[in-house]
Amino acid sequence: MKTSSGRFFEDFHLGDVIVHATPRTVTAGDVALYTALYGPRFAVQSSEAFARAIGYSAAPVDDLLVFHIVFGKTVPDISLNAVANLGYADGRFLKPVFVGDTLSTTSEVIGLKQASAGDAGIVYVRSIGRNQHGDIVLSYARWVLVRKRQPGTPAHAEQVPELAKAVLPDVLGEGCPPLDLAGHDDALAGSRFRWGDYAVGEKIDHVDGMTVEEAEHQLATRLYQNTARVHFDAHAAQGSRFGKRLIYGGHVISLARALSFNGLGNAFHIAAINGGRHVAPLFAGDTVYAWSEVLACAELPGRSDVGALRLRLVATKNLPCAAHPLKEGEQYAPGVILDFDYWALLPR
Amino acid sequence: MKTSSGRFFEDFHLGDVIVHATPRTVTAGDVALYTALYGPRFAVQSSEAFARAIGYSAAPVDDLLVFHIVFGKTVPDISLNAVANLGYADGRFLKPVFVGDTLSTTSEVIGLKQASAGDAGIVYVRSIGRNQHGDIVLSYARWVLVRKRQPGTPAHAEQVPELAKAVLPDVLGEGCPPLDLAGHDDALAGSRFRWGDYAVGEKIDHVDGMTVEEAEHQLATRLYQNTARVHFDAHAAQGSRFGKRLIYGGHVISLARALSFNGLGNAFHIAAINGGRHVAPLFAGDTVYAWSEVLACAELPGRSDVGALRLRLVATKNLPCAAHPLKEGEQYAPGVILDFDYWALLPR
Amino acid sequence: MKTSSGRFFEDFHLGDVIVHATPRTVTAGDVALYTALYGPRFAVQSSEAFARAIGYSAAPVDDLLVFHIVFGKTVPDISLNAVANLGYADGRFLKPVFVGDTLSTTSEVIGLKQASAGDAGIVYVRSIGRNQHGDIVLSYARWVLVRKRQPGTPAHAEQVPELAKAVLPDVLGEGCPPLDLAGHDDALAGSRFRWGDYAVGEKIDHVDGMTVEEAEHQLATRLYQNTARVHFDAHAAQGSRFGKRLIYGGHVISLARALSFNGLGNAFHIAAINGGRHVAPLFAGDTVYAWSEVLACAELPGRSDVGALRLRLVATKNLPCAAHPLKEGEQYAPGVILDFDYWALLPR
Repeated sequence: MKTSSGRFFEDFHLGDVIVHATPRTVTAGDVALYTALYGPRFAVQSSEAFARAIGYSAAPVDDLLVFHIVFGKTVPDISLNAVANLGYADGRFLKPVFVGDTLSTTSEVIGLKQASAGDAGIVYVRSIGRNQHGDIVLSYARWVLVRKRQPGTPAHAEQVPELAKAVLPDVLGEGCPPLDLAGHDDALAGSRFRWGDYAVGEKIDHVDGMTVEEAEHQLATRLYQNTARVHFDAHAAQGSRFGKRLIYGGHVISLARALSFNGLGNAFHIAAINGGRHVAPLFAGDTVYAWSEVLACAELPGRSDVGALRLRLVATKNLPCAAHPLKEGEQYAPGVILDFDYWALLPR
Repeated sequence: MKTSSGRFFEDFHLGDVIVHATPRTVTAGDVALYTALYGPRFAVQSSEAFARAIGYSAAPVDDLLVFHIVFGKTVPDISLNAVANLGYADGRFLKPVFVGDTLSTTSEVIGLKQASAGDAGIVYVRSIGRNQHGDIVLSYARWVLVRKRQPGTPAHAEQVPELAKAVLPDVLGEGCPPLDLAGHDDALAGSRFRWGDYAVGEKIDHVDGMTVEEAEHQLATRLYQNTARVHFDAHAAQGSRFGKRLIYGGHVISLARALSFNGLGNAFHIAAINGGRHVAPLFAGDTVYAWSEVLACAELPGRSDVGALRLRLVATKNLPCAAHPLKEGEQYAPGVILDFDYWALLPR
Repeated sequence: MKTSSGRFFEDFHLGDVIVHATPRTVTAGDVALYTALYGPRFAVQSSEAFARAIGYSAAPVDDLLVFHIVFGKTVPDISLNAVANLGYADGRFLKPVFVGDTLSTTSEVIGLKQASAGDAGIVYVRSIGRNQHGDIVLSYARWVLVRKRQPGTPAHAEQVPELAKAVLPDVLGEGCPPLDLAGHDDALAGSRFRWGDYAVGEKIDHVDGMTVEEAEHQLATRLYQNTARVHFDAHAAQGSRFGKRLIYGGHVISLARALSFNGLGNAFHIAAINGGRHVAPLFAGDTVYAWSEVLACAELPGRSDVGALRLRLVATKNLPCAAHPLKEGEQYAPGVILDFDYWALLPR
């Protein structure tokens, strides 16, 4: 059989290391498409001149574009037979990526747990993205519910990894060079609010909304060489639970992040992903809104140039966020689609 | 309040100079997307080899892509609360832009006039786009009708700037290096008609039509980092006058310009924008057609390589242009959506 | 008349050589868009590092992107008044194309045959794409049925060229440098199956499906500067046979080729196109599936690094390909849209 239908739960074994296919050179074309798909406006990624003025050697590639490319490679090997994408944890952006860098990904199976129904199981992996020099640029854990090939096969020995609830501040600076803040122009950056201007508990409605079209999320997901069928095959989707194509969850994260510029214009770098939940699916024609809550403020050991904000980024569909919708009792409120917890760096 | 909802009429004062956010390095990715969005076929912008053969140091970036990027930056500060985009004047492309250049924009408030209803006012700005060396690449005036925050507030002192009806020929060559016409291959350029072959009053139907999809204009408008909500938010648009997303007016200009290649293949450079009116809105699913009229022919002082044509570029929706539709009496004819007046350069 | 409405059958004469307009520099932006449009995952084109490790000087541009750009230039001169695109033959990719190369195209009329109805005729051309050094990168024959301007005009002298049914193996290596297979990492390439692992008669279902949106094929076709009206003008299409826009046949080829990665991951280079038929039209909203059959295996004279597979690539719409649908009796089976015959190279 020359065609791969992807791994089933039985095919994963603890400690397996999978080398994912198709290394990918990131180009100015990818960056332009990322801009066209989401409309980010952070000056550091948008302008070579701005990036160099504050101490970067060149404009870095958007952290989420790096995430999507690194993640996309894992799909054919990890999640082609996934029932659900359950979560992320301990995501760390450890080195900036620049145009011209080539990214590749490996994943290690770090946990396995059969679901009670016996027809699927949770696979935990640690995925690592490296550049052409072998440097780790991104490391994150992820767990997915994967179908079994044969519902009757015996369960693997169960092993659930312990994953940090949040990345500790001491590694948050690794993906950010020392900044020369004398070169930081707040007007060009688009915000006069720096790290010290945000307070724990502060909630920010990002105001704007963005409607998603089928062509847009398909272009994005293919750009990341992510092959999950649910995003592309409307014919097969007719017989699925939703009857239509599902939008890649990472598309929602990128939209919400781009919207968050309005209110978080100086939060130029995603240093870490503490966790993320795709609460409900997004479909073409829906409009995404977002709001943020400041969960924590942290200094970075030994650095006076930047500080970190731990942010909850909530995205909704067809529901403006002036009221900061999140939960109703224990449940997520209708319309909430993403609950994302990350660390961003801002100039001090 | 960390989120910006944009300026209202009361927030503008004569002489204010606004530094707009997010400088932008123009890349080969932007150029490719521009090609994919509109299909321009002018050889100078399409081919490094062609551009160098006639004396450019490299293929210049399409003038309208420069316009859209420079313009896009002004939206969050100028027109987020605009009721209508009223006009442009005195737009001059003063220096070619190349891949790798970083563009930024400032705007000066040059006029203010409260509308008679008292709930809005016209804001006149002069916007200036500069490259990373501080050189002005584009300068244009624009006026928009902007809502007041409080309909009751007293009016500003009225001041309406005098704007030239047309840019004078003596500055039209500034954005175009001296050309070596020995290197100009008309077959590769796609037209045997040079500047001297066009006559005042000549009308040209550009024949082809281009249907616009929601994904296309959203990709374009985000590429320009233009944040005007009316282009992106279908949920909010349900309650608006049109009930759906509006297409950015600049998208129409670029489509019409690309269509105009068929008939104006040697009009490779937009030297100036004399004026422009978005006569009616365009929506996704509509098909754009275009025709041109030669309004004037001008020599450029001291230059024998290129001449200028003043062109009226008319775009329509769902209305082919063999009959050159424009006005019925005083009114624009149904189907006309753009009346655009510009100077183009052609080889002599 | 400054506008071109394209050539009619009467306008073609045997031996005519047409220099097509708009040379085109291929950029990293084009490559990124190609990835976003089709999702190809061949490592050689995706990664500078992978390409260099096996002996390329840089990552080559996808062969089909080269084909579409070279082909697109011919449309305004050859097929604007085509009734049908009848076939291709003897297509040879003779030199790799890299980012930065500028492509231009000429076509020679090599055959003419009036259709029996007298209102149209078949035009045979040999089109040649060259880079900025004048090197031929692609040569192919194509024939199209072109309308006559006047149904009554007398027929041209008939001449039908003899075209090879298949390209001979001895030229298949020209577009591929000598490879250093020690640098070839099958895990990164995404397939452990090399040339010797395929057998004549083997059939491979590529499993995945890809739904096409109007915005996607329009972006693609404009990227190639292909101006065929049927792809872009929904208003005019209302009165046409199908009542809607037709998708460029090349779009189908690229989709099917990208899907074929799943099963043919090491078939990194299209060396030649033996023939191709667009069996039925594709429309937006349809889902494309594909399967392949190995028609022949060939060694390349003097080369031990790569071997060639002659492949039939069949694409369908809204019809998964587990049963390898092709013909029912003499006729193509319902749902089949493409029958494409090409040579691919694989490492040995």
